[in-house]
Amino acid sequence: MARAAARSRRRRGPRTTPDTRAIVAPPGALGGRYAPLTEGEIERIHDAALTVLERTGVEVQASEAREVFADAGAEVDTATDRVRLPRGLVEETIAAAPTEVHLAGRDPRHDLVLGGTRVYMGTGGAAVKVLDLDTGAARESTLADVARFGRLADALDNTHFYLRACVARDLPNELLDVNTFYASLANTTKHVTGNCFTVESLEEVLELATTIAGGEQALRERPLVSLVTSWTVSPLRFAPETTEVLTAAVRLGVPVFLSSAPQAGATSPAALAGTLVQLHAEELSGLTYTQLLRPGAPTVLGYVPSVSDLRTGNFVGGSPEFALMNAAVAQLGRRCGVPVYNSSGLSDAKVPDVQAGYEKALTGLAAALAGSNYIHHSVGFLESLLTVAYEAYVIDDDLNGSIMRMVRGIEVTDDTLSLDVIDEVCGPDGEGHYLGTAQSLALMNTEFYYPHTADRRTREDWEADGAPDLRERARLRARELLDTHRVQPFPDGVDDRLRDRFDLQLPPELAAAR
Amino acid sequence: MARAAARSRRRRGPRTTPDTRAIVAPPGALGGRYAPLTEGEIERIHDAALTVLERTGVEVQASEAREVFADAGAEVDTATDRVRLPRGLVEETIAAAPTEVHLAGRDPRHDLVLGGTRVYMGTGGAAVKVLDLDTGAARESTLADVARFGRLADALDNTHFYLRACVARDLPNELLDVNTFYASLANTTKHVTGNCFTVESLEEVLELATTIAGGEQALRERPLVSLVTSWTVSPLRFAPETTEVLTAAVRLGVPVFLSSAPQAGATSPAALAGTLVQLHAEELSGLTYTQLLRPGAPTVLGYVPSVSDLRTGNFVGGSPEFALMNAAVAQLGRRCGVPVYNSSGLSDAKVPDVQAGYEKALTGLAAALAGSNYIHHSVGFLESLLTVAYEAYVIDDDLNGSIMRMVRGIEVTDDTLSLDVIDEVCGPDGEGHYLGTAQSLALMNTEFYYPHTADRRTREDWEADGAPDLRERARLRARELLDTHRVQPFPDGVDDRLRDRFDLQLPPELAAAR
Repeated sequence: MARAAARSRRRRGPRTTPDTRAIVAPPGALGGRYAPLTEGEIERIHDAALTVLERTGVEVQASEAREVFADAGAEVDTATDRVRLPRGLVEETIAAAPTEVHLAGRDPRHDLVLGGTRVYMGTGGAAVKVLDLDTGAARESTLADVARFGRLADALDNTHFYLRACVARDLPNELLDVNTFYASLANTTKHVTGNCFTVESLEEVLELATTIAGGEQALRERPLVSLVTSWTVSPLRFAPETTEVLTAAVRLGVPVFLSSAPQAGATSPAALAGTLVQLHAEELSGLTYTQLLRPGAPTVLGYVPSVSDLRTGNFVGGSPEFALMNAAVAQLGRRCGVPVYNSSGLSDAKVPDVQAGYEKALTGLAAALAGSNYIHHSVGFLESLLTVAYEAYVIDDDLNGSIMRMVRGIEVTDDTLSLDVIDEVCGPDGEGHYLGTAQSLALMNTEFYYPHTADRRTREDWEADGAPDLRERARLRARELLDTHRVQPFPDGVDDRLRDRFDLQLPPELAAAR
Repeated sequence: MARAAARSRRRRGPRTTPDTRAIVAPPGALGGRYAPLTEGEIERIHDAALTVLERTGVEVQASEAREVFADAGAEVDTATDRVRLPRGLVEETIAAAPTEVHLAGRDPRHDLVLGGTRVYMGTGGAAVKVLDLDTGAARESTLADVARFGRLADALDNTHFYLRACVARDLPNELLDVNTFYASLANTTKHVTGNCFTVESLEEVLELATTIAGGEQALRERPLVSLVTSWTVSPLRFAPETTEVLTAAVRLGVPVFLSSAPQAGATSPAALAGTLVQLHAEELSGLTYTQLLRPGAPTVLGYVPSVSDLRTGNFVGGSPEFALMNAAVAQLGRRCGVPVYNSSGLSDAKVPDVQAGYEKALTGLAAALAGSNYIHHSVGFLESLLTVAYEAYVIDDDLNGSIMRMVRGIEVTDDTLSLDVIDEVCGPDGEGHYLGTAQSLALMNTEFYYPHTADRRTREDWEADGAPDLRERARLRARELLDTHRVQPFPDGVDDRLRDRFDLQLPPELAAAR
């Protein structure tokens, strides 16, 4: 077979692979073929979450948020800070929430339309350590890392957005947010998500984005940035300061992700279904809030159901229970007709070893097949949420290419059923194999995902090349991409204006888009 | 949280983990939550396969098999050796095929009931190389390896059957089959599947199994062995010699797996749907044959749709297209109401690295969630089908534990919805966390899969232990299991009788069950 294929290639002469990657593993492919919950189970969980909001309620301290709920008819118990939300109020309010949230990249090719079962996979979230690309050892993450990971995200085809990879531990708090967004936006033309610790820094970030977009109207039409807000402290509590940031973001029209990450057995019930009930209640309380505050505010439900290893209390990112729940939430969000953000692609391995590979694949595939819209954490993470690695960006992008190929699925049409091809090949004058058929040649570059870094060579060829494992290959590739990848620059003069206006700490040579 | 958990553990004093593994990740858990094909697509593929059998037909040379088809009303073209099967004949014949196939282990705890959406994962198939456990280098596989891999399969909880891992390259052909089955049966109490190259060796193997089972009637009631027969050469050709072995096996009442492994783009159409059509046609032709030969013969459809990398012609085991097709076949088999054998858990990596991890997870999870009944190749393989590794047995068993936990899914009941637990924990007298709740303690050992070898420690603890990656940990564990695992012996005197009767080459110290 190998010989026949080689002959067939030779006949056609040397060739380059056309850019058919977006056909093979398309961003936004439709998921939903995996349904961890039945329709009846979805209804029971949704109904139970409404019961929780009505009976148990959420804790909201005296604040503007509590007034918003009270004005809408919620029952406020000032002695215990409990706000109980009648199910009718929740159901009516969320019914009017947007079913799609549009997010823009600096390059429109990277725009995202969140909603339905469209699947996008990208980076995240807030690692504090990096595996150094030179030494391989873990060290504190810096602003330069935020920039470099952004550049890798820009270069990698199966990474659909850039949620800042890590925390710039070398910056003081008051410079963190605007510098993080700048380092991200300057290094990728894909959509950038991040968070802001204060209303003031949110306003700075918006000014930054407005300048890059070319004005307030331009930014409203094409939101280059979005905000992830961890506005709850599970179980069922609004975090006062983060809720203030959320409130400001909604008022300013920034698309928001309502992130909540209860740990089963610790900050939510040990029963997976119970964790889903509580988390869904938390999400519905947040969505009700944003829609009461500003009807139609672009809001993404941000489910991050997680797991504690109950033997140690440790957060566990690579477990099958994590995978199951982070797939199920795609169904819960669709029940509400609202886009879903979740977490997948985590691993508890400390380095990109075989454990990292399988844990990331299990959680990533489950969420993608279930049709989650914005799968963050799916590129680059190790050690649960603590470490991020350059080579893991390359590896996980290749993995996510495979996953997106699987999400795309099997096309069944009159042509692909191939009755005539089969009859011809197997008929009396047929060749008895399909290597040279017109169909094989036509589908060669659209039906099959070819990994950019994973190894398909024979053992002999691989050994002759020094027997590198995928981690080694990926380190080489990451270095090469960081050295050679060019990022589309900001419009003329924009970078200078940003540097005049803000205290930007990123060395100019790391601002790829200047 | 970690501190609270530690406190809670201390209060309850030291404890051992009860044997709840079969609850957490149960063999035979029901899959089917992932449906790569819609019902309509299944019908189209099934219908197209019937059209292929009727119009294109299968090649069957002059033989008993061809006579069986002719007697049943098939159209035989003796000039081209084509046998065309009217769709009515196929549909009627397969409608009477058994919907379940029961397979026994020497230990009844390991019995398998193939059918419906029950999922079992196990080993396979016919590697010719082994990564030596001492040197780590690839070398030729031997009979001792067949025995040792069997012993590992016996020791590992998430490995549900033993399809001989590798070929005993140190044996002459005439001794191969009976020695392979002996080495397998002597080292595991799980069900053993293998193949036989001749009718004579099949008869020897049956005599061997009869002796171990304690008589012909006992073996019929509890089939300790089953036979995988690669009776086709794709596209659409019966292989004369293997078909003779299949014929004998069916007559002798041995459960058979009808294995066919066309490669998309080489021995089947490049369109994935077309490969499924051709493969389904091949399987239906085989099933029609076994049922014509002996109505009710225990037969498992053996779909192994595979992929050629069309750039090189190489077989590719770890691709997303492989995963998609090997999941879809579970649906095609269920359409016929007949159990399904498939392939998953392959990788094109040469060592257990991050690539091996993710490729195995993608293919294994997809097939298991789709509800394939007998997933072979899912433990131990590397380099597609060529190499098997001891440490990979340990790693993949841990992976398959996670997969089976995911197949089991999320139980949604009044209890697991946890409304009262949530209300209590979040209520005015609640603790605000779930660490010490009765529910958490009760579910601790049944809701969560705890890996036996994968690492969940902190980076600090892991570094203090020498920073071993999972491959290193798994090598240690494999060695430990091989040294310490005891296999339930054969009944008294059986081993001596077998050694008297057959030319058994396995050194007695490697026959764990003597």
